[in-house]
Formats: sequence, structure tokens, C-alpha cells
Amino acid sequence: MELRDACFSQEFRSQLELLMRVRRDVRRFRTDPVDEAVLSRCLDAFRFAPSVGLSEPWRILRVDSPSARDAALRNFEAANAEALKGYSGERAETYSQLKLSGMREAPVQLAVYCDDSTTKGQRLGAATMPEMRKYSVVTAVTLFWLALRAEGLGLGWVSVLDPDQLNRDLDAPEDWALIGYFCVGHPEELSMTPELETKGWETRYPALQMETR
Amino acid sequence: MELRDACFSQEFRSQLELLMRVRRDVRRFRTDPVDEAVLSRCLDAFRFAPSVGLSEPWRILRVDSPSARDAALRNFEAANAEALKGYSGERAETYSQLKLSGMREAPVQLAVYCDDSTTKGQRLGAATMPEMRKYSVVTAVTLFWLALRAEGLGLGWVSVLDPDQLNRDLDAPEDWALIGYFCVGHPEELSMTPELETKGWETRYPALQMETR
Repeated sequence: MELRDACFSQEFRSQLELLMRVRRDVRRFRTDPVDEAVLSRCLDAFRFAPSVGLSEPWRILRVDSPSARDAALRNFEAANAEALKGYSGERAETYSQLKLSGMREAPVQLAVYCDDSTTKGQRLGAATMPEMRKYSVVTAVTLFWLALRAEGLGLGWVSVLDPDQLNRDLDAPEDWALIGYFCVGHPEELSMTPELETKGWETRYPALQMETR
Repeated sequence: MELRDACFSQEFRSQLELLMRVRRDVRRFRTDPVDEAVLSRCLDAFRFAPSVGLSEPWRILRVDSPSARDAALRNFEAANAEALKGYSGERAETYSQLKLSGMREAPVQLAVYCDDSTTKGQRLGAATMPEMRKYSVVTAVTLFWLALRAEGLGLGWVSVLDPDQLNRDLDAPEDWALIGYFCVGHPEELSMTPELETKGWETRYPALQMETR
């Protein structure tokens, strides 16, 4: 790949928009394995991501062992049951019918962290906004998400979790902050509509929320 | 665009990788204007972004007036001078030679916020990890960044700023958290290498930081 090829066509831009539109947060996975070479190619997206001061603060724990997966699943189930208690009536009924994680089915599961103790980058850009390190990790996850989808794979971001408990269960270093627990696999179906919209949890804004100063 | 077209070719994936590789955080802009129709198309990326609970917490202030731009620029310059004091010797010399914002040149400037008071999404997915709302805004910015680059435009993320001061100067609502100040325009040049690497501030890891549990 050469720099001189970095002029993108109208056709590419249309496909890129389609990729963004069908991205989805996936909770329904088939259980067949993910090709390791494809996964590895998608993980390269982390290395192309922007990071404040070139700090590259992303750290990944690949959760493979049955004991680690079981601890993560129990964590989700407890947090999800607790969250349900916060709703009542019809809202509780809708919540209880949502599938909010594919942790029982997804063949690949990753806990992604931000190492807030890293000295890489020498604090550049993070002195007044130290949260920029975490945001760097989120940009990397977003690129990974698109790369997976372009390969026909899906990603589900699980945040219904007690992060402290997960970090202890996965023996994550103290200075690492959990960004999310991610399920990766072949999605059962394709859609342009978020499941939370289909199931009547929430609707999307008709337009972007923007003002001028 | 139809859902059945959402099967992406090897050629598309190569171009997507190239797009990620040439993305860059841009600080050197030409001063010629950005086509408003193109900008609007790129801003659509926010609407395709994932958001926790479908909360869509992104809020954008487009900074157009000379007084608001001047306040933002003075804010950056003060924070940058303060940051320089934190380095000494060769490191301070290198820092002082970096160009960390294109705020004097960029034709379009946006302050992007997260509305942490939104009730949209009903706290779904954000009960144990409320930071998920901010991360949702960061995913949207990342998609916007790629959309801009695919149109030949560049984005620069300025975080060397006092967020409280900026929020006061831009009269942002109290519950909004600044995610970043963004410069948009035509980049002066293309590169696959971060400027912080070219200028000797920091190097990139040779491989991804990943362990197994």
C-alpha cells in the first residue's frame, strides 16, 4: 500500500457509510470459531489508532479459560439482575426481554483496558485532560469494530458489569481501567437498526444535536 | 443502499486499512474553506455511531465567531505554555518545536461534548459504568474522523486546554463534559507516520500489548 493510493473513490465512501450503518452492537452470535488469522488482522486496527502523545495505552486480556469466562458471565448476570431492579412496570418488562450480552455464545472474548500509569507519551496532551488516554483506547476499539464488520464478524460491547470485580477476577494490574468487555464472533443476523430500537427501548434522534457559537 | 450489499470485498478491506493508516491527527491545515455539503455528510457519521442504551449523548458546538475562536485559541496557548514548563532539557526543546493545534488555520472548529444529564437511554448499560456515555461520544468522533479522511479532509483533536475555562467561554451547559476541541480542514500533507514519531517525541510499540487469561 502506497501513500499515493490514499485518494478514496465515491464508491469506497458509499461502502464505508454502509459499513458504519450495519455495524451494530451484536449480542446474538453463532458459536462457530473465528479464524485466528482474520482476528489477528482485525486486531491490527489497534495499532493504527490515534493515541494521545502516542501513549498507546491499550492493554488487552483475551479471556479464554472456562474459569475466567465463568467469572465474567456471573459478573454480568449479577449486574444485569441489579439493573433490572431499577426499572418498574412496562419498562422493567421490556428490559427483562432484552438480550444484553452474547457471553454464552461468542467464541472470542476480550477485556480491554487503559493503562493509566503508562509513561509512554510523556503526558503530552493529557495534562489537563487525563481522560484522553481512555478516549484513545475507545478510538482503537472503534477501528477494531469496523475491521471486524468488514470481515463479516460482529462485536458486542458489554458494560453491564462490576468493573472492580472483573479486574480482580482477571487479575488485571491495579492501574488499568476497564474500557469494556467485548464479545467477538459471527453474528446471527445483519441489521441496519439497533436492537434497542427494534425492541422499543429507545428511539433515535431525527437530527444531530448541534448549535453555533 | 441495501442490507444485502453489506458483504465487503477484499479490495474494500484493503482500502479501509489504508484509510486507517493515513488517518492522522492533523495540525497543519490549508486555510481554504470546507464544502458545507461534504461536512454535513461527514457529520452524519455521528448518527451511525453506537451509543450506550441508545442514549446518543453527543452534543456539538460549532465554534464560528471570532470571539469564541479567540477564547479557545488563548486557552490552548496558555495550557501549552504551562505544559512546556513540565519538561526540561532536550525534552522541553522537542516539545517547544511541536505544532499541537491547527486552531489558527482550520476553517471549521467544533467543541464536542457529552451530555451526562441525558435521560435518553434510561441508564441502560451505564449504571455500573457511567463513563460509557463519554465513550459513546468518542466512538462517534472516530467515525467522523474516518468519514472526513475518506473525503480528503483532516481532523485534529486538541486536548491541551483547560476544559472548565473553555466551557465557560463557549457557554456550554453545566452537565456537558468536554470530549475534545476539533479542527477540521484540508490537510497540508499526507502521511502514514504520526508527527510525534517523525519529530522524535515517541516511538510506536512493535506489537500489540495482549495477554491471555
